[in-house]
Amino acid sequence: MALTYQTKMTVPFDMSDINGFIKIPQLLLLSLQVSGLQSAELGNSDKSMLEQYNLAWIVTDYDIKIERLPLFDEEITIETEALSHNRLFCYRSIRIFDAQGQLIVDMLASFVMFDRKERKVHPVLEEIVAVYQSEKSKKIMRGPRYQALQNPQIQDYLVRFYDLDMNGHVNNSKYLDWILEAMGSEFLEDHIPERIQLKYVKEVQAGGLIESKLEVQGLQSSHEISSNGQINAQALVSWKQIKR
Amino acid sequence: MALTYQTKMTVPFDMSDINGFIKIPQLLLLSLQVSGLQSAELGNSDKSMLEQYNLAWIVTDYDIKIERLPLFDEEITIETEALSHNRLFCYRSIRIFDAQGQLIVDMLASFVMFDRKERKVHPVLEEIVAVYQSEKSKKIMRGPRYQALQNPQIQDYLVRFYDLDMNGHVNNSKYLDWILEAMGSEFLEDHIPERIQLKYVKEVQAGGLIESKLEVQGLQSSHEISSNGQINAQALVSWKQIKR
Repeated sequence: MALTYQTKMTVPFDMSDINGFIKIPQLLLLSLQVSGLQSAELGNSDKSMLEQYNLAWIVTDYDIKIERLPLFDEEITIETEALSHNRLFCYRSIRIFDAQGQLIVDMLASFVMFDRKERKVHPVLEEIVAVYQSEKSKKIMRGPRYQALQNPQIQDYLVRFYDLDMNGHVNNSKYLDWILEAMGSEFLEDHIPERIQLKYVKEVQAGGLIESKLEVQGLQSSHEISSNGQINAQALVSWKQIKR
Repeated sequence: MALTYQTKMTVPFDMSDINGFIKIPQLLLLSLQVSGLQSAELGNSDKSMLEQYNLAWIVTDYDIKIERLPLFDEEITIETEALSHNRLFCYRSIRIFDAQGQLIVDMLASFVMFDRKERKVHPVLEEIVAVYQSEKSKKIMRGPRYQALQNPQIQDYLVRFYDLDMNGHVNNSKYLDWILEAMGSEFLEDHIPERIQLKYVKEVQAGGLIESKLEVQGLQSSHEISSNGQINAQALVSWKQIKR
């Protein structure tokens, strides 16, 4: 068992959607923040990792299972744990519990270490993952096979100035925003995801347009974010209707 | 002097723009949050105001003077005070200080009380403003005269599902986002506002498109947000170039 890190919070008004659920891109932002808090507490902040090793964490995949979404004003506990790692990947669990201790959201995030000078993925450095007491394991957790979309609907989005962070990168949560928004307001008013599988392929460049492509079959949707003819991210989402 | 309320915070990574400045729509969001915290502390939360009086606060105008913008990881103090009120308007100051106690952002917000049952503005209720020790004054703080735009550039934005809050309203800070984004990334990379004057005219409806119109003359820009042929908001912004 690796070290776990927990933080409690109450879902604020400005994170809540029209149905009172937490906005799903916010869930991803929170998961990154809580992972960052654990790293900082263990003396391995993003800043020190960059200064000491010239390395940055990059998320490559998410697998998000949603039993139910946290509600406005609900007190939740977010727990994270660096589950295991192999030669290239580090796997991190982010779990959200309600006040009764019920697991309501269960996320798995895959990270790689990125060498900022060489501009390429760096093999996992044991001395970094040691601080999390992450277990070394040959197990590779593969995401699904994402099929190319045949005849997608397309929604364009502008990459906005305020979408960029200090490093000129679009936050991971923004990709999910583009993916979900493309379903349209009417659908989103009546449905929430049960499971989201998301793969980051290539970073979106600042400025210009991205295409959010999708194919919907019943309560399953397949997604591609692409720009300049290249795929930037792929996703599969299973939906369920909101009970009223 | 009315009661003041203060809160300290450190500007987090995900609120910081590509230049390391706090994202300006976030400033507006913070100002509303801090006003809300004071109200809750004084026993006049939005919820209790609605339950007791059927009234909600609505911001009608902002006047924001920016000496300099808070930076990533900077500790700031946000202070708010219900300055004064007259028959219809309540004026609130929101000030941001740096760690040396220097005033760096000075905002004035004008509020009215809105009767949710009657769907119209309600005269200021003395028993509500009394809790803030707000001073009664005949002084009316008028915003500038916003001229109709003659030959504007137009940028369309979709009102997105995640732009809406639990009441189906677009947050005040989103209007500022549409206004500033319309200046374009290139301009925003090199300029920050010195002063923003903003008037809310009519609420944007959920769904559909808004037009962010603008005319730029040197370092002054004039803005309109409109939808369905109606003006929703107007703004004047004075800019300065970022010193490198």
